[in-house]
Amino acid sequence: MQTVNVELGERSYSIHIGNGLVASSLKEVDFKGGIALVTDTTVSRQPWFSKLLKELSGLSSKVVCLEVEAGEKAKSLSVFSHLCSRLAEERFSRSATVVAVGGGVVGDLAGYLAASYLRGIKFIQIPTTLLAAVDSSVGGKTGVNLPEGKNLVGAFYQPQRVVIDLDFLKTLPERELSAGMAEVIKYGLIRDAAFFEEVAKGRPTDLAPLIKRCVEIKAEVVAVDEREESGLRAILNFGHTLGHAIEQSVGYGKLLHGEAISIGMVAATLLSERNCGLSEGTVSRVRLALEANGLPVHYPGLSFEQLQPALLRDKKTTAYGIQWVLMPEIGRTELCSDISEAEIRQVLQKIV
Amino acid sequence: MQTVNVELGERSYSIHIGNGLVASSLKEVDFKGGIALVTDTTVSRQPWFSKLLKELSGLSSKVVCLEVEAGEKAKSLSVFSHLCSRLAEERFSRSATVVAVGGGVVGDLAGYLAASYLRGIKFIQIPTTLLAAVDSSVGGKTGVNLPEGKNLVGAFYQPQRVVIDLDFLKTLPERELSAGMAEVIKYGLIRDAAFFEEVAKGRPTDLAPLIKRCVEIKAEVVAVDEREESGLRAILNFGHTLGHAIEQSVGYGKLLHGEAISIGMVAATLLSERNCGLSEGTVSRVRLALEANGLPVHYPGLSFEQLQPALLRDKKTTAYGIQWVLMPEIGRTELCSDISEAEIRQVLQKIV
Repeated sequence: MQTVNVELGERSYSIHIGNGLVASSLKEVDFKGGIALVTDTTVSRQPWFSKLLKELSGLSSKVVCLEVEAGEKAKSLSVFSHLCSRLAEERFSRSATVVAVGGGVVGDLAGYLAASYLRGIKFIQIPTTLLAAVDSSVGGKTGVNLPEGKNLVGAFYQPQRVVIDLDFLKTLPERELSAGMAEVIKYGLIRDAAFFEEVAKGRPTDLAPLIKRCVEIKAEVVAVDEREESGLRAILNFGHTLGHAIEQSVGYGKLLHGEAISIGMVAATLLSERNCGLSEGTVSRVRLALEANGLPVHYPGLSFEQLQPALLRDKKTTAYGIQWVLMPEIGRTELCSDISEAEIRQVLQKIV
Repeated sequence: MQTVNVELGERSYSIHIGNGLVASSLKEVDFKGGIALVTDTTVSRQPWFSKLLKELSGLSSKVVCLEVEAGEKAKSLSVFSHLCSRLAEERFSRSATVVAVGGGVVGDLAGYLAASYLRGIKFIQIPTTLLAAVDSSVGGKTGVNLPEGKNLVGAFYQPQRVVIDLDFLKTLPERELSAGMAEVIKYGLIRDAAFFEEVAKGRPTDLAPLIKRCVEIKAEVVAVDEREESGLRAILNFGHTLGHAIEQSVGYGKLLHGEAISIGMVAATLLSERNCGLSEGTVSRVRLALEANGLPVHYPGLSFEQLQPALLRDKKTTAYGIQWVLMPEIGRTELCSDISEAEIRQVLQKIV
């Protein structure tokens, strides 16, 4: 088992990575107030799920399983409201723990539930997708979508612990694993050129070292800028400004989050070439790395008009315009809010 | 203008008390991101409201007024959801500020909105009832009700500032002012015997010193135990365990919150006589003080069976039973979880 710590003062916690480690890594947690396990209909069908449930039942005398429909639609205030009522019906008290078992949707929804129920109860993340393991399960961003946009409502709420059990990732479909690699490649691009070179070759069989490096980077960034105030945490949004807009305007379900981010990163790399001196040739290195990991680098038919409403609604929009994360060289980023519509239109033509 | 500080490290803020002080006490706040003013249909009809709106418009070029129906029903996840969407439609960014202008319902709802929209934006409380001024606007408890119970969903989220303009309290109906006195008397009972003796005589004409003393006590308690973890903040719930249950089972709207708390405090005083040595005669002093302030001390027809579901659902319920705040003598409290059903039934007979 490997451990990475997220240093956040009294909100510090550890991330455990390994095989079959759920019971052992949670055994000293106080579960006397019971466990509200939040998961989805895909996860609960996995062959390992009943074993996990049994292990959790060994840790607490009260385990209530709350299952939501798989997919982005569950990340809504109406599902959130339903889950709040379920916790109240089950009379969970302030000493209860919400345990999220699933991908980013389940983690974000369950985290906001834990942050809000009785104004905050304990929270544990057990990510079951590569994307959730390397990204959304770490750092305390929780929340749901509004009809008006993605992640517009939520809380910064850190988990007590993150348990990444590699056994759960073994049953993931190839496409899900590829989507996760988009965020993995992102960490290399924004913070570690050597790591980028490694993952540019394609996904390795042993995911443990790769996941460890990603969560190390994320932990470093979050420790410095937990609430995305200083600008540092914003670098994690590399590729996400256009990525989110693409995801939203194409419609959830057509592209996986990681796939949209992959296309968004190509766009951000193109914008970096034009605006902050990224050397020629890097765009194709980034494209090749994404393709080597089974990721899309364009989406035919996208138009600026289609993306514009979502772009303007992006949380990263300041009073002064959209805040872009650019990359002057692999491994380093800078923020830029001064990109014209004309430039975005030109870059769009290269990803359609 | 008088000022009380709430010392919470980087979340510290000041409470300003005075007449006609909104514009002056907010002039150095950064309102460049615009103001989402949350209020209700009663407040927006007050003679001073249009002047307040004009003053806020002088502080920010964008002021959007979001009005909810007056009453406890607005404190729901569906109204919360509607307000989140309104902020998104108006394209408020992270630099926006939610300003609550109203009583406890508006403050709690708007505070949870500020805590949640884009995972947290600035928040300012302008309480317009005595109850909100001395209690709910200070300390960062925000949230909404569920069909299953009161305040079951929310956040600890401190405002940037609390502005208590006594001019706004002048148009309050007598019954509202009396209801506010219940929380005022509570501060005396739990923390300051001399203050209790003062307010036991009835409501004074000049409310400023009284409000100042209440928010000083609340600020002290909140500074030590912001998230109700050490047990200290729990003392603010004196009278609230039964008070909330009465409010819920009688039905919101029949009794004002302060009126239910008044009856709840009589019950808590009776329980204190039986369980922690409160001297004989204190119950009648407490009753007389409440009556001198126009508050009810009983509610005919209440039964244990009627209150039980709400009691069990109380957030203060631990795994071991309900946590009661008792008062061994005026000005001092202790926590107690060991009160039998039979005792509660006996005490109930004295408040019906």
